[in-house]
This record gives sequence, structure tokens and C-alpha cells, in this order.
Amino acid sequence: MMKIYDFPRGPYPARVRIALAEKNLQSRVRFEMVDLYKGEHKQPGFIAAKNYSGTVPVLELEDGTLIAECTAITEYLDALDGAPTLTGRTAREKGLIHMMNKRAELELLDAISVYFHHATPGLGPDVEIYQNAEWGFRQRDKAVKGMHYFNGVLKDQKFVAGDMFSMADITVIAGLIFAGLLKLPVPAECEALQAWYAIMRERPSVKNRVTMSESVS
Amino acid sequence: MMKIYDFPRGPYPARVRIALAEKNLQSRVRFEMVDLYKGEHKQPGFIAAKNYSGTVPVLELEDGTLIAECTAITEYLDALDGAPTLTGRTAREKGLIHMMNKRAELELLDAISVYFHHATPGLGPDVEIYQNAEWGFRQRDKAVKGMHYFNGVLKDQKFVAGDMFSMADITVIAGLIFAGLLKLPVPAECEALQAWYAIMRERPSVKNRVTMSESVS
Repeated sequence: MMKIYDFPRGPYPARVRIALAEKNLQSRVRFEMVDLYKGEHKQPGFIAAKNYSGTVPVLELEDGTLIAECTAITEYLDALDGAPTLTGRTAREKGLIHMMNKRAELELLDAISVYFHHATPGLGPDVEIYQNAEWGFRQRDKAVKGMHYFNGVLKDQKFVAGDMFSMADITVIAGLIFAGLLKLPVPAECEALQAWYAIMRERPSVKNRVTMSESVS
Repeated sequence: MMKIYDFPRGPYPARVRIALAEKNLQSRVRFEMVDLYKGEHKQPGFIAAKNYSGTVPVLELEDGTLIAECTAITEYLDALDGAPTLTGRTAREKGLIHMMNKRAELELLDAISVYFHHATPGLGPDVEIYQNAEWGFRQRDKAVKGMHYFNGVLKDQKFVAGDMFSMADITVIAGLIFAGLLKLPVPAECEALQAWYAIMRERPSVKNRVTMSESVS
């Protein structure tokens, strides 16, 4: 059985939990909680043994191979059955999905994460040993601008990378999950983004992601 | 014919130029220079028409479809002939290559880029309208630590993501190209990284990347 190191309510862990459910692979993994608020992901042991970058989620295969980074884990899970549904089939789909996935990180999810860790109490003083508030607030502003950008995209198309649900939608969903945790509202005028998110929240993969750990613990 | 908007000597453009040459696709593109030192990539027109994130390279397909972000462009180019050599064939290869590619961005290339734009004169005062030097210097230190990390990886294996050249090697190469431009030396004790880089620099795709634009202009 594969193992996932994560933190059930975390926005980045959500990306992999949603991908798992979309691919119907929940029964093939068990979860091991890494307590972010205790800084377990920044311990030298975790960094040396599991992920140099000190982040979760990390996927551990049965042979011990470790795959960190949400995009990489999603690529792995999506390719397992030889029938990719999240990362694209043709060159064009792959290109567009990876572009929008990266854009969702840069302009939304990662920006909110920097805001959280640098301009709010974040994971608490024992974990946030260096903060750069000015940088954090700039990233918050960038994320709000990013919401307007994705609103524009979703006015013209059903999903973030075109007419099919993909990994890029999952990354925007994670961004809005993070924004929700921080009470950073989606601007009222971003109606297309809000309408899309209302539909996304009803997808079983999104709705049930946090309970996933309970079923195996 | 496809078009690539880039800046010939740029480290990120290098990623796509190397990928193009590795896939032997040079004859299928022409280049259009975006002058970074004039801030052409930050002009509202470029942002609205070509890439919301205001970065190069951007690939424009014959039908006008735009693909930004190096990883996305590499995915596209690598899938064109149905025989991927840079982004992985199996689930395991895809997972490991994407992990190491992202790690090379996070821990090396992107860190050096932030250092350049925030803690050096960067592209000059007209383009670098906001700088956060403290953040920039921290990212420089992170990149030097990243060099030690990749040195450790390359002690044990021939390439960044295992026993095959991949997109992850290209991203580390781009990191060291950027470090070279900034005279940020690879530490002397990083012998495995230096030995690997000496071999990489001799690859035709790496060696001839800057002259690529001249052949079509």
C-alpha cells in the first residue's frame, strides 16, 4: 500500500486528496499525519528522510520511492492506470493544463501561502522563525489580483484549462480553500469564479477530502 | 511555424531552447525577442496579449494558442512526436522528473531569480520598480544550499532525476547558467555538481542554445 504524509486540512494536501478521489485511488493509500503546527515538516529528520524542501504532501510508494510536490504526485497518480484525466492526453492539453496549473500556483495558491507564512501568525512563532511581512502583504495583493484573472478565464470557459476538469482546477480550488481558511474573501465582483467554485465544492472529490484520513486510521 | 517570445541569453529561455534542441525541433520555430532590459515583458500589452504573468519564454502555436511557463512548454514539445524523452514515460518517471524539476526551480533557479530581481540591480531601476533586498539575499543563500543538495544527488546518480537526462537536468542547468551570469560561484566542494555541469555544457543543446535565434532572424 502507498503512503501519503500530509496534514488533513492543508490546502496543498487537498490537491493530492482531490486527485486521489478523482482517480478513485483512495483505497490504495494510507495517510500519516505530519503536524504542521508542531513544525514536524521542518524537522531535520523529515527533511533528510522524506522531502528536502520540508513540505507536505509526500507520496511514498511501496518500494520506498518518495515523490514530493503536488504536481509531481498528480502526474504519478494520473499515469498509473494509463488513462490520464487530470494532466492531459495530447501535447496541447498537457501544455495548457501545465501552464494554467503553474499560473494557479504563482498567481494564487503560492501567493496566499507566502502571505500566510510571512504576514500572519502562520503556523505560530516556533515554526515561523523568519517572516518578511512586507513580502507577505505584496503576495496577498497578488493573490487578490489573481482571483480577478481567474474570474476572467472562467467567464469564457467552463474549467480553468478549457472544457475539461483538470489538475489546474484542483490548484485553483486549493487556492480558494487557503483563502477561505484565512478569511481572505473572493471579491464580490468575481462572479464567474464564485459560480465555478460553488460547482467545484459539490464534487465528491472536493467535498469529502478531509474525511479521507479517517477511513484508514 | 511556431513562434517563441524570449530573450536569447535568459536562463528561463534557455530551458526551452535546450528542450527544443533535445527534441530536434529548432527548424519548426522562429524567435521573437522581448527585451527584458527595456521591460517589454512587463508592458500591459504583452501581459494582456501573451502572458498574464509577464514572463518569457512564451510559445505561440500556429493557431495562436499561447503556452507560457517552461515546464508547460517542455511538456508540449516533448509530447509532440508521441515519444517523450524529457518528461517521463511511466508513472514513476513522470513523478520523479516532475518532483526534481520543481525542486530545481524552488531550491535553485527561482531562488537565484528572486536574488537577481530583488538584491542586485536586476534589469535596472526602470524595470525593478519594487525590490525587497532582505528577501533577495535569503533566496541567494537558499540557492547556495540548493547547490549542495544537488551535489549530493549527483554523487549517487548520473542525472538529476535518475539514470536518464530529463527536464529536471535542464532546470538545474538553467540555475547554473543564471548563477554564472551573476558570478555566484558553485562552491568548490560541490565536485559532483561541477563534474556533471562540465558534461552538460558539452551537450550540443546546451552549447548552441544562444545562437539559435541567429539562424532564423
